[in-house]
Amino acid sequence: MIYFDNAATTELNESVLDSYLQVSRKYYGNPSSLHSKGEEANSLLKQSRKQIASLMAVEPEEIFFTSGGTEGDNWAIKGTAIEKVEFGKHIISTVIEHPAVIKSLDQLEKLGWDVTYLSVDAEGRIDIEELKESIRKDTVLVSIMAVNNEMGSIQPLTEIGKVLEAYPTIHFHVDAVQAVGKLDLHLAESRIDIAVFSGHKFHAPKGTGFVYLKKGRQLAPLMSGGGQENGMRSGTENVPGNVALAKALRILLDQSAEKRRELNRLKRELTDYLSIFDKVTLFTPENSAPHIVCFGVHNIRGEIIVHALEKVGIFVSTTSACSSKRKTKTPTVQDMGYSKNEAESAVRISLSHYNTLEEVEQFKDVFNAVYHQMKEIE
Amino acid sequence: MIYFDNAATTELNESVLDSYLQVSRKYYGNPSSLHSKGEEANSLLKQSRKQIASLMAVEPEEIFFTSGGTEGDNWAIKGTAIEKVEFGKHIISTVIEHPAVIKSLDQLEKLGWDVTYLSVDAEGRIDIEELKESIRKDTVLVSIMAVNNEMGSIQPLTEIGKVLEAYPTIHFHVDAVQAVGKLDLHLAESRIDIAVFSGHKFHAPKGTGFVYLKKGRQLAPLMSGGGQENGMRSGTENVPGNVALAKALRILLDQSAEKRRELNRLKRELTDYLSIFDKVTLFTPENSAPHIVCFGVHNIRGEIIVHALEKVGIFVSTTSACSSKRKTKTPTVQDMGYSKNEAESAVRISLSHYNTLEEVEQFKDVFNAVYHQMKEIE
Repeated sequence: MIYFDNAATTELNESVLDSYLQVSRKYYGNPSSLHSKGEEANSLLKQSRKQIASLMAVEPEEIFFTSGGTEGDNWAIKGTAIEKVEFGKHIISTVIEHPAVIKSLDQLEKLGWDVTYLSVDAEGRIDIEELKESIRKDTVLVSIMAVNNEMGSIQPLTEIGKVLEAYPTIHFHVDAVQAVGKLDLHLAESRIDIAVFSGHKFHAPKGTGFVYLKKGRQLAPLMSGGGQENGMRSGTENVPGNVALAKALRILLDQSAEKRRELNRLKRELTDYLSIFDKVTLFTPENSAPHIVCFGVHNIRGEIIVHALEKVGIFVSTTSACSSKRKTKTPTVQDMGYSKNEAESAVRISLSHYNTLEEVEQFKDVFNAVYHQMKEIE
Repeated sequence: MIYFDNAATTELNESVLDSYLQVSRKYYGNPSSLHSKGEEANSLLKQSRKQIASLMAVEPEEIFFTSGGTEGDNWAIKGTAIEKVEFGKHIISTVIEHPAVIKSLDQLEKLGWDVTYLSVDAEGRIDIEELKESIRKDTVLVSIMAVNNEMGSIQPLTEIGKVLEAYPTIHFHVDAVQAVGKLDLHLAESRIDIAVFSGHKFHAPKGTGFVYLKKGRQLAPLMSGGGQENGMRSGTENVPGNVALAKALRILLDQSAEKRRELNRLKRELTDYLSIFDKVTLFTPENSAPHIVCFGVHNIRGEIIVHALEKVGIFVSTTSACSSKRKTKTPTVQDMGYSKNEAESAVRISLSHYNTLEEVEQFKDVFNAVYHQMKEIE
């Protein structure tokens, strides 16, 4: 079995699961309780926050635990909209954002906000000039993802940040779900105000995540209540989940340069190989994240390839899991200028640092066979 | 060690944890993925939803997984406010709601909504006449908890439902976090439109929960995105958590009549015993939930009792964990007509069906000693 669908979700790391277990068993207290069972849980929570902050090179007060990437994106967007409602109702984003962003913006549009969606070029990148021209007096938020989940394309965050230096009151939100461990965000030095992370994309438990919110930036809560997370995100803390999340992040970022080099090597192997086939189009641009390869076989729907590979134990996907069963938005492939037909052929391989060169070699053999089968059918 | 703080959070059941483990290890796929790893996960998710629906005697389409009670309450309140914004901006609630409700309403008030807070009597119950008089043409939501988390008082949901029969467009939201397994909600036959549940209050993992939303009722999502949970609550599903949640609910509701009888017996033992002491006031009303006993020792702050009991291995709390460290609202004890001084003496014992008569007997001995120590100090 070869699991190449890591951008959809990852296998829970066994040692991370073990931490989850230990904490669940021994430290089940509510961190808000006054007694020692509460104190113990609270101290673990603090430790996890400190660990994550240290790994991200930011302050512990800038880290907020959530239930995942969707919550983080919703919070960043709706929280900014509410917080800054008196200053304006204009938001800038891009056409290739994750549905958690697009659908949050949809909801705000229905409630009277105005959203400008930046287009992307054939590389899946926005145009800095278009961004500049889109900024208005009433712009309160710029929401642009770091790494696209379907294509692996990387947005020019530093250049965007430079543009936004002139507009200190605009919140700059970055969906960094596919970026963590794959590129350096340099959050502390960046113009980024809010960055969103999801645990299950890096071998942490599902239902975990965190948000980076730069010190001094204001954000209305999405989850109001008991005042946990410094009043910013209420709800009894998932202490076992958060301890596990911190551990998974530590593992992810341990020797991350090497891990990235290895990912890039596997990706190169895959793209070099796929390029041989005359009916294969590589959609993933040259300069992209090291874990995503998106391609299509001419005139063959992505599902067909997914199922053919699955038969021999290789798990890949059509574009993103978040839109594979429900049509939530136009495929990124199409936003990049390809046809609807080409977009429908899209297949995504997404790697984790647990994938190996051997698996890639196996994939090659299998793909070769599948490709020739397909050609016969055609 | 005796854990009597089950209204704050509960110990994760070992067999529930085992299910979590199994699913995490074997079925880590994203339910939205097209391949069999996705299908397997999706099928487990469906099964869990069906199981919960069956246990609650409602339809699977009426169950939505969340990250817990706070999310549920925020969703019910803010989701209704957004959904019904064109019909009115008036909400009715009570002064003794959980902070997840109170703080959500605070946020809406700042954004222009109008909230009427019903008072409670010495038994911690609202007055039906006051409710009737509070309903306006622009009322869109009535939010009233089933069982109060600090006191165990039960609201007259059936009578409230009867009043609301005449107002079919008003959403009736019930925070049922402390009610599940403790009283029968008869959701399907009730006027309740939205009921909110939290997993970690009944030995399920932290970060899990579900919402009941009556078929046909509209609610704007709080978490927009990939369209999971029938478009109502996006975010990659926490499949291991949800399977574990369903199992914990099954265990909770298995022979629940017997479990409740036993809880009531323990509660009776506790209240009978505490009544002997002339300086003890029982705050919990006679007709209340079977798992909560709130009392105070005259002129002794609750924390002192909590820490004295903790020294001998008994874990209780001052009122609720959600307000014990942060002042988020007036204590329910005060809302019931007691003085600030009395409210500050409040100590809460909260039971689970895993607590035993032996533990109660041990508590009695310990409390007797602590009480006489306190009297000396005084």
